[in-house]
Amino acid sequence: MTDLAPEQLATYRSAQSAPADFDDFWAATLADAGTHDLDVRLQEVPTGLTTITTYDVTFRGFGGQDVRAWLRLPVGATGPLPAVVQYVGYGGGRGHALENLLWASAGFAHLQMDTRGQGSGWSLGATPDDAPSPPQVPGVLTRGILEPAGYYYRRLFTDAVRAVDVARGVPEVDADRVAVLGGSQGGGISLAVAGLRSDLAGVVAFVPFLCDFPRAVRVTDAYPYREIIDYLKVHRGRQEQVFRTLAYFDGVNFAARAAAPALFSAALRDPVCPPSTVYGAFHAYAGPTEMAVWEYNGHEGGGILDEERALGFLRAVLAGR
Amino acid sequence: MTDLAPEQLATYRSAQSAPADFDDFWAATLADAGTHDLDVRLQEVPTGLTTITTYDVTFRGFGGQDVRAWLRLPVGATGPLPAVVQYVGYGGGRGHALENLLWASAGFAHLQMDTRGQGSGWSLGATPDDAPSPPQVPGVLTRGILEPAGYYYRRLFTDAVRAVDVARGVPEVDADRVAVLGGSQGGGISLAVAGLRSDLAGVVAFVPFLCDFPRAVRVTDAYPYREIIDYLKVHRGRQEQVFRTLAYFDGVNFAARAAAPALFSAALRDPVCPPSTVYGAFHAYAGPTEMAVWEYNGHEGGGILDEERALGFLRAVLAGR
Amino acid sequence: MTDLAPEQLATYRSAQSAPADFDDFWAATLADAGTHDLDVRLQEVPTGLTTITTYDVTFRGFGGQDVRAWLRLPVGATGPLPAVVQYVGYGGGRGHALENLLWASAGFAHLQMDTRGQGSGWSLGATPDDAPSPPQVPGVLTRGILEPAGYYYRRLFTDAVRAVDVARGVPEVDADRVAVLGGSQGGGISLAVAGLRSDLAGVVAFVPFLCDFPRAVRVTDAYPYREIIDYLKVHRGRQEQVFRTLAYFDGVNFAARAAAPALFSAALRDPVCPPSTVYGAFHAYAGPTEMAVWEYNGHEGGGILDEERALGFLRAVLAGR
Amino acid sequence: MTDLAPEQLATYRSAQSAPADFDDFWAATLADAGTHDLDVRLQEVPTGLTTITTYDVTFRGFGGQDVRAWLRLPVGATGPLPAVVQYVGYGGGRGHALENLLWASAGFAHLQMDTRGQGSGWSLGATPDDAPSPPQVPGVLTRGILEPAGYYYRRLFTDAVRAVDVARGVPEVDADRVAVLGGSQGGGISLAVAGLRSDLAGVVAFVPFLCDFPRAVRVTDAYPYREIIDYLKVHRGRQEQVFRTLAYFDGVNFAARAAAPALFSAALRDPVCPPSTVYGAFHAYAGPTEMAVWEYNGHEGGGILDEERALGFLRAVLAGR
Amino acid sequence: MTDLAPEQLATYRSAQSAPADFDDFWAATLADAGTHDLDVRLQEVPTGLTTITTYDVTFRGFGGQDVRAWLRLPVGATGPLPAVVQYVGYGGGRGHALENLLWASAGFAHLQMDTRGQGSGWSLGATPDDAPSPPQVPGVLTRGILEPAGYYYRRLFTDAVRAVDVARGVPEVDADRVAVLGGSQGGGISLAVAGLRSDLAGVVAFVPFLCDFPRAVRVTDAYPYREIIDYLKVHRGRQEQVFRTLAYFDGVNFAARAAAPALFSAALRDPVCPPSTVYGAFHAYAGPTEMAVWEYNGHEGGGILDEERALGFLRAVLAGR
Amino acid sequence: MTDLAPEQLATYRSAQSAPADFDDFWAATLADAGTHDLDVRLQEVPTGLTTITTYDVTFRGFGGQDVRAWLRLPVGATGPLPAVVQYVGYGGGRGHALENLLWASAGFAHLQMDTRGQGSGWSLGATPDDAPSPPQVPGVLTRGILEPAGYYYRRLFTDAVRAVDVARGVPEVDADRVAVLGGSQGGGISLAVAGLRSDLAGVVAFVPFLCDFPRAVRVTDAYPYREIIDYLKVHRGRQEQVFRTLAYFDGVNFAARAAAPALFSAALRDPVCPPSTVYGAFHAYAGPTEMAVWEYNGHEGGGILDEERALGFLRAVLAGR
Repeated sequence: MTDLAPEQLATYRSAQSAPADFDDFWAATLADAGTHDLDVRLQEVPTGLTTITTYDVTFRGFGGQDVRAWLRLPVGATGPLPAVVQYVGYGGGRGHALENLLWASAGFAHLQMDTRGQGSGWSLGATPDDAPSPPQVPGVLTRGILEPAGYYYRRLFTDAVRAVDVARGVPEVDADRVAVLGGSQGGGISLAVAGLRSDLAGVVAFVPFLCDFPRAVRVTDAYPYREIIDYLKVHRGRQEQVFRTLAYFDGVNFAARAAAPALFSAALRDPVCPPSTVYGAFHAYAGPTEMAVWEYNGHEGGGILDEERALGFLRAVLAGR
Repeated sequence: MTDLAPEQLATYRSAQSAPADFDDFWAATLADAGTHDLDVRLQEVPTGLTTITTYDVTFRGFGGQDVRAWLRLPVGATGPLPAVVQYVGYGGGRGHALENLLWASAGFAHLQMDTRGQGSGWSLGATPDDAPSPPQVPGVLTRGILEPAGYYYRRLFTDAVRAVDVARGVPEVDADRVAVLGGSQGGGISLAVAGLRSDLAGVVAFVPFLCDFPRAVRVTDAYPYREIIDYLKVHRGRQEQVFRTLAYFDGVNFAARAAAPALFSAALRDPVCPPSTVYGAFHAYAGPTEMAVWEYNGHEGGGILDEERALGFLRAVLAGR
Repeated sequence: MTDLAPEQLATYRSAQSAPADFDDFWAATLADAGTHDLDVRLQEVPTGLTTITTYDVTFRGFGGQDVRAWLRLPVGATGPLPAVVQYVGYGGGRGHALENLLWASAGFAHLQMDTRGQGSGWSLGATPDDAPSPPQVPGVLTRGILEPAGYYYRRLFTDAVRAVDVARGVPEVDADRVAVLGGSQGGGISLAVAGLRSDLAGVVAFVPFLCDFPRAVRVTDAYPYREIIDYLKVHRGRQEQVFRTLAYFDGVNFAARAAAPALFSAALRDPVCPPSTVYGAFHAYAGPTEMAVWEYNGHEGGGILDEERALGFLRAVLAGR
Repeated sequence: MTDLAPEQLATYRSAQSAPADFDDFWAATLADAGTHDLDVRLQEVPTGLTTITTYDVTFRGFGGQDVRAWLRLPVGATGPLPAVVQYVGYGGGRGHALENLLWASAGFAHLQMDTRGQGSGWSLGATPDDAPSPPQVPGVLTRGILEPAGYYYRRLFTDAVRAVDVARGVPEVDADRVAVLGGSQGGGISLAVAGLRSDLAGVVAFVPFLCDFPRAVRVTDAYPYREIIDYLKVHRGRQEQVFRTLAYFDGVNFAARAAAPALFSAALRDPVCPPSTVYGAFHAYAGPTEMAVWEYNGHEGGGILDEERALGFLRAVLAGR
Repeated sequence: MTDLAPEQLATYRSAQSAPADFDDFWAATLADAGTHDLDVRLQEVPTGLTTITTYDVTFRGFGGQDVRAWLRLPVGATGPLPAVVQYVGYGGGRGHALENLLWASAGFAHLQMDTRGQGSGWSLGATPDDAPSPPQVPGVLTRGILEPAGYYYRRLFTDAVRAVDVARGVPEVDADRVAVLGGSQGGGISLAVAGLRSDLAGVVAFVPFLCDFPRAVRVTDAYPYREIIDYLKVHRGRQEQVFRTLAYFDGVNFAARAAAPALFSAALRDPVCPPSTVYGAFHAYAGPTEMAVWEYNGHEGGGILDEERALGFLRAVLAGR
Repeated sequence: MTDLAPEQLATYRSAQSAPADFDDFWAATLADAGTHDLDVRLQEVPTGLTTITTYDVTFRGFGGQDVRAWLRLPVGATGPLPAVVQYVGYGGGRGHALENLLWASAGFAHLQMDTRGQGSGWSLGATPDDAPSPPQVPGVLTRGILEPAGYYYRRLFTDAVRAVDVARGVPEVDADRVAVLGGSQGGGISLAVAGLRSDLAGVVAFVPFLCDFPRAVRVTDAYPYREIIDYLKVHRGRQEQVFRTLAYFDGVNFAARAAAPALFSAALRDPVCPPSTVYGAFHAYAGPTEMAVWEYNGHEGGGILDEERALGFLRAVLAGR
């Protein structure tokens, strides 16, 4: 990967733009989903942890399909708690109840949403993707990519928007203090949710994926963006159709519609989510922003330092409300 | 990969066995599919070829879902022609109308079935896989692998069995002289069809995939068998459930139910479909068999020499009827 | 590989130029070869194909040495047929009689020339290269590279020019309607023949190799161009001598002498034959040209779509004569 | 890597044995270290966590050199708490205060010791290795390997033994209920400590490294064991001397001297710490043992499931005292 | 590569055997070559070295073709000197006059023969291979492999036998004290010369190549042995013919005809020349032998320690005459 | 690696500059070392060479620690001889007494200094690095990198400066005619010595390492420069501190203080020591310079041709004095 130098990133603006019916498309999609009741089910899980209470959550997402999540609360919390809704990276799922204890240990209600049909890669998932699969490259990035209506991320983003409602409905949670957070794919989802909801208190997107697609496929050969290249390699001549679909799902377009304060991170040696694609969304973001840049890191970004900064950021944005 | 030596292959027998309800499972599956009419639709395609007539075929496969295929006939054929139904390798689809001219050029009716949900890898496909995807490893080998009823290959094998009916129904075809053929995944499908139908005149399986799963994951780390390993790596503790499902789809078990004369090939340096797994099915095959062994080849097997031998084999088995 | 962007390719012109005695060199070379009779020998091969008649061809090429080829004719053709002379890619030979049926199936006489001394890589050959081998890097690209007179491609290009005469002499062929075609090395040979003969009806060069050598070694590290780099790495200080030889064999220089209508293809992600090197020859081409560009493909280029387009192109240029 | 099959592992016994002066060597080493006061210094760290109190710990290890650690206590704990002393994997250090919250969240006092001179790989460290470095392969596995007295692990194991005293001295800790735990190198250290102290309540070694060296270098080419091979490749003829040193540091020899109940894990596809080397130590272990085997995993072993099992194991062995 | 353990190597005997006309074949080949005068030409080269005098040597080898060599003599030597004739490894040539000063610095006359047609890989050559190249895999191992008469190594071994005569004819050399030496391919050539001449005083073969071909292709996938596999992969069905040719060139068969004292070396982790193939020749060697085994090394073997031992060995065997 | 084109290299100037106390730092460092007597010990080694006498040398380097070297003299030399002090490449040591005979064979006294703590990679060493190792990436490039005083290269450069004194003190050596020489790390050390001593007669730096650090980490991902990137990846936020240290050790800053005639070489395809970093030092060099550029080579540079040129260069600069 050869991406832009820091001084070029400072002025880079993505050429991506939203289709004319972008807002209509999403309004209709969410309205459709809204015809299904959330139907949140919580079941406490005996983890043996003494400082965190954990619930196995099920709710209805896109198409009314059941989506799973973990809810972790600091023991003894009676609320009202600020909440963090977390989305996970490509190939992973919500993982195991004993993983990912940081946010609840820091005093937040922590809802970690599962990722439909993924969750067999670096962490386990429990939610199927209930939809047809046209011919596609292995992975989910090209599943249904010829039409926005059938594209995989239409379903996943809809699940994610509704997960915010799940969090807001938890009795211990202060519904006015809910933030979304994620890294890589989870960061891309966070940006999508930020663009689709006006009631968030904060947004954290570490090295976000799913941003500035036209540039991404030009500057990197790394997976998962490369799935698009692999697809077009065989489905020759479909590029216009494919990029037309992707415009409905590009973090750049969601960012332009977002209002909540946002913390981004980008890594200058990241071939997976090249920094320029992150800056594409960052510079388009309509609300207040901060950026953590990691000059010597790849896709791991700032790692625990990104999370430490996010703790401070979230405490600030969730406190003031 | 370290697999058996030639002298060990000669005596190797797979430890795989069929579940007690194997036959019931498949009888019920095919009966279910049989409730949908085949509804074959043929549309001639202008290819510019002067020696071959080509049709774009659509028929109803598993769940009544539309499945595509190419039908190629030698120009001027009025029948009755012997027919070859071909299935394709992992990741591929039926490809382009101008590809794969050998069988029709040799005087056969040639029906090449598309592969649902694949067809974005080395060749193009046009058929979606209309079913939910539980958490899975990229690819299709672990799609729905926790239960036989939802496993991907239940749908694909059912399509394949029905493609034989499509071929038999072509006016130019002599329904008593239909053979199935394929390499790698296509070979595995051919063996499945051989075990599920009693009316085939011949079976050709080049370096077949989907055979002797328990041994395959033990002797090779190569994809696609490795998708199973990747799955079990994350879905720890699911191995019994996974191998229980796979037993319903193992070429070894289909081979034990087959009767038509069969030509196999195996390559001794094949990490993708290790030779012992091919011999597992070969030695279990209940009908007459021939084997072409390629000592210095990998998964390419005998290549055009495999096809040349298959031409002779098919001419022989299809002539005598 | 980092090559030019599409808009830069549109204006790129190669800096390669022909040595002063380029035309004399080739005139003398072909005149020398002309002292040997073509001595074409055809032997029909029983392939079992019902739509194509196949001949094993032997003729005298460079130095009077025997060169092999396949001739495929549509069954029943009495002529006069348009003809396609095909040259093959690096490392390969004419292959097997049952391979490569497209052109004859489309109604052309199809002469596929073997490649001297190669033919042990991806397809089989049957023609030796009868000449001394000075110290060289494995492969043929540096065989005899210190002097034009002893360079491997002097012999191969001469064979190729004479193969056109072989095609023209086939009784079923209309000598005024002969085209040359090939991909990669085969495309480079086609361009050489196009520059050395004035009696061609068409030229097809898919992702051609052997073009714009000075740029090629600068923009790619991929084989086979890298054989030149490997050679100069050890034969330090020989670069002027090596590039002096290569100028006699560069597709850019042949293109500038060609007149027949030509179809090129280039792939923007091709590290083997970088697109700028193809455009180097394309923009230098003296006759009418067409270009098929594949933005998401590597050295596979357009694959079957390249061939489909070539079918249309050949039908057009061969029809009008 | 080709290691033993499960049934062979069940009966495998390591050929490693302890030098005659093994116990004297270690007694003298620890006595030497004992001449330095532990001099434990604790400084509370403001992490922002609401459920865990974190201390930056400094104590005197081998040679009286300062060694760092984190101490994490559940908020509000007044003791007496059971404690877990954790050692980390190769190349890593104690990491960041916000990482690794599981054990304290489960109600244990958690002391995570830093690793001298490492801590620049996958996690950060803060402790230097204060000793000369004879010529060595990059890494620490061959640092000082020609003599037991100067070998790196003499210093590190001594630090680790003293870390148990640090834990026992924490006011909130019940000194009779201290266990050691670690994965990979951390598991190897845990076994060493288990063999050197008689006052432990439990031992957990996930896929332990530093076990059965003679077998390890024979069955794997993976790093870090390969550092030994790399060393012997250049230091030809030193193998006896090297393996003589390693015998003083082999988990097999420590296991034979251990008494506390121990939980091991091994992964059958682990090239880094091949399962037979783990079984070498496991079968030699003199106290009560349990083993978690992961058939489809590599060096990640059981991951969070290993930790979940360890939680149960620790609760049991630490409760009964 | 998985090759035999030390204890198995001790008893391993190659199954290779010589064709009935092996001796006749070589007698006729050398007699043929003998019809050409050696025609040795020496030209002193100004190297700037003060302790070594260097000559550029040309002599007539196979087919009377000119072959080059370096002759290095200790300054001031008037003779009679013992001599070492050295052959070089695969892909290399005689290199540069300033390289390889060890043998002359140790007081030997040192003749280093060039390798026809190679010498563009790791060192430079100056001798062409004057012969036709049938279709072959890149490299020289399969050049002309279908017939012993046209096989590349027939020419190279003949050059090598004649190089001994060149050395014996140097005025400063004591013709009764000439040894041959080489590593890898050079070791294989040394063994061939040892089997073809009865007047050698010693033979040194470091990790020799070209030994026990049938086993070599079975136990390793590494180049250059893999060139044979690559060849047979495409030239399917030619294995008997290929191995029939190789039997005339196998070090095992030459060893069985050798009489001079020989020093071998083998490396137990050598994938290029697997130790069992070396032992195949070693155990077949008819004269007195020594073996240096390197347990932790790959194809570099003992490196300078192999050369140090060879110095001692040569001093001993060349002194006693 | 994508580095500058030849015409850009011609004008490239490094942005590196020396810290204000650079000269003081080094003056103090060398003065400190000067408090230890050199204490040179020579022991003749019986090598069996007849043209070269070899001594095993021990002297006191940084901190008074023993450092080893080889001294090779042409047999019979009584002096006064010009001398070459050689430093070796990364990971290597002084090697074996029988290696590296060129310089003594050419009539120079040749002192080859060992490299503390390295010498287990491509050649053997015998000198430990007697200093603490803070957390570091494997290798020595980041050992103690947070402070100039504790950085590894402070010790090694000091050894190197003192090795010149060792050479000057050899009775057969003409103390006015001493040059330093080395490749890669050895070249970087040579430049450092050139900047720290005013009494050298010549300097040879083949493809030098340790030059223009800020550019190096920007243009290459290859080791060993990558060790710095790996370090900063984990030690996030330490870049200023790290580059502050490196400025005291950068060949660019030493070059600006050097006066002796210098021969450099650079290779345009060298990812290990990118050509621009070499030119950074070359253009800063304060004395007379020559450059050998190798357009088609990687880190091997000119190989023996670099050495041949160095022979001529050294003969010239050492003759005139």
